[in-house]
Amino acid sequence: MSQIISVDIGGTQIRAATFHPGKNTPIQIQRNPTHSDTRTVYAGLISLIENVWPKEEKVRAISVAVPGPLEPKTGLVHSTPNIKEWVSFPLGEKLQSHFQVPVHLDNDANLAALGEWRYGAGKGHHDILFLTISTGIGGGVVLDDRLLHGWKGLATELGHITAIPDGPICSCGQAGHLEAIASGPGIVRYVVDHLKAGEKSILSGENFTPKEIANAARNGDRLSLAAFRRAGEVLGRTIADFLHMFNPSIVILGGGVSQSSDLFMKPMIEMMTGSVMDPNYVKDLVVAKAELGDEAGLVGALVQAEVLHPELEPN
Amino acid sequence: MSQIISVDIGGTQIRAATFHPGKNTPIQIQRNPTHSDTRTVYAGLISLIENVWPKEEKVRAISVAVPGPLEPKTGLVHSTPNIKEWVSFPLGEKLQSHFQVPVHLDNDANLAALGEWRYGAGKGHHDILFLTISTGIGGGVVLDDRLLHGWKGLATELGHITAIPDGPICSCGQAGHLEAIASGPGIVRYVVDHLKAGEKSILSGENFTPKEIANAARNGDRLSLAAFRRAGEVLGRTIADFLHMFNPSIVILGGGVSQSSDLFMKPMIEMMTGSVMDPNYVKDLVVAKAELGDEAGLVGALVQAEVLHPELEPN
Repeated sequence: MSQIISVDIGGTQIRAATFHPGKNTPIQIQRNPTHSDTRTVYAGLISLIENVWPKEEKVRAISVAVPGPLEPKTGLVHSTPNIKEWVSFPLGEKLQSHFQVPVHLDNDANLAALGEWRYGAGKGHHDILFLTISTGIGGGVVLDDRLLHGWKGLATELGHITAIPDGPICSCGQAGHLEAIASGPGIVRYVVDHLKAGEKSILSGENFTPKEIANAARNGDRLSLAAFRRAGEVLGRTIADFLHMFNPSIVILGGGVSQSSDLFMKPMIEMMTGSVMDPNYVKDLVVAKAELGDEAGLVGALVQAEVLHPELEPN
Repeated sequence: MSQIISVDIGGTQIRAATFHPGKNTPIQIQRNPTHSDTRTVYAGLISLIENVWPKEEKVRAISVAVPGPLEPKTGLVHSTPNIKEWVSFPLGEKLQSHFQVPVHLDNDANLAALGEWRYGAGKGHHDILFLTISTGIGGGVVLDDRLLHGWKGLATELGHITAIPDGPICSCGQAGHLEAIASGPGIVRYVVDHLKAGEKSILSGENFTPKEIANAARNGDRLSLAAFRRAGEVLGRTIADFLHMFNPSIVILGGGVSQSSDLFMKPMIEMMTGSVMDPNYVKDLVVAKAELGDEAGLVGALVQAEVLHPELEPN
């Protein structure tokens, strides 16, 4: 049998795993810190891949999840948030010429969507919208069993849709994007702004995490409850826009903030349902939590290789 | 040789044409008023198709452009704006059992997008976004040479994305959609509201058309100029959102209002360019006018048949 090597490049650690095509249980996983004083990120990546390289079986492809804008077709990484030296970095080409096997790249949110589609909450669906909500908001969309990429592979930046024109400034520099409002930092900003305006809360200052706001909300803190309710309402209205754009049969929520969905799911669903132009968009629509958690990137990279190498599928 | 019959069902007339696959010059076109006192719309449609039915050559498929929500897979028309009796109407099935050839349906904006992709402004592009701006705003998106449909065929309702939350009410009943602001009626509403608020203009009252506002603007009327500028700005910001969602290599503008693009193109492009999260979205992006005009629906229906019957292609 042959194997696929999946790699998930994160800001703090890089993970590599090997899989048999068609099975999402890894044969082995290894991890390394992304940054080190003694080697470049690229050198660390090479040695990690060498470490998981199978002794007995062939490697058919290396499939890599990278954060940040890149061109899946050419394997060119435009930039990544936490790896400063990777600017217009031809990662795909370099890996391919080093290891002499096909190398496939895509961004981590797209691959997480693919992973959920084949092995997670989206199993059995042909049209899925995956939204990951944590420090940022990202996503991926599969329609008719194909991941949407667009011209340069930059499609489905779902966090960067205008939710409130003239709203808070987004990490990308534009105003009022969904990410600026409903991400973890967006929820923190709401609480900080309202504390400054004199609202009462068991929280004070400005150094708290979304998790601490969630705990305060669960203890009945009104401002914290309002912060999550408002994030839910904006999410709900924006998801209605996504339904009009993509018409998925399932919306899958992943990322750290969606752990607090008890605090925003109800207003989100109400706002979404009340905002569609036609009840057919929400009739039989499934809204579900992501199932692959931390391994979404690795499993998604496996699925990318499976999709691009149909000859490897067991049946 | 065999032929394709294309049909475009409009609110005031129905047109039917025959084509040889691979050639977008019709062999013949015939048209009938949609409504008549002496027959149902469906009976008129049947007789129009019979009229264009070729004597010497075989018909390989009938391909139909229908306004309003429908299910392309099953051929079920949910409803159409101007044909009241077609509610949950199984048009595809009925035509197929009557004529005994494959019948394909899609909405007119999706098919216009397909037409522009293969025979119009989008020729040579693989990722196109088509936006038609007239009484309403509709659209269609082709990514990686495939038209996006979504789960129930309801994707890419591009006019129904929230542009200004709590903005004017849209024809669909929701608030602040792009269509409520940048369509013909949206532009008229802007002028009427500002006249009521006491602004000066060479227009008065509330019975004028978008074309009359365009003429007034070209004669230097400030309010009319502002109305188109504002429509252009909102279009530009919303198109930036579309770029983040779909990442097309070309944006094609069709519909009556885009005849006045001299009045809104500049603010539209400026706002679009200033609103993207990454300059790669607009680098080498083409913004073009639709080329197929009135025949977009017929030609689009031809392309739908060509795509679904690749065995008919001449090469």
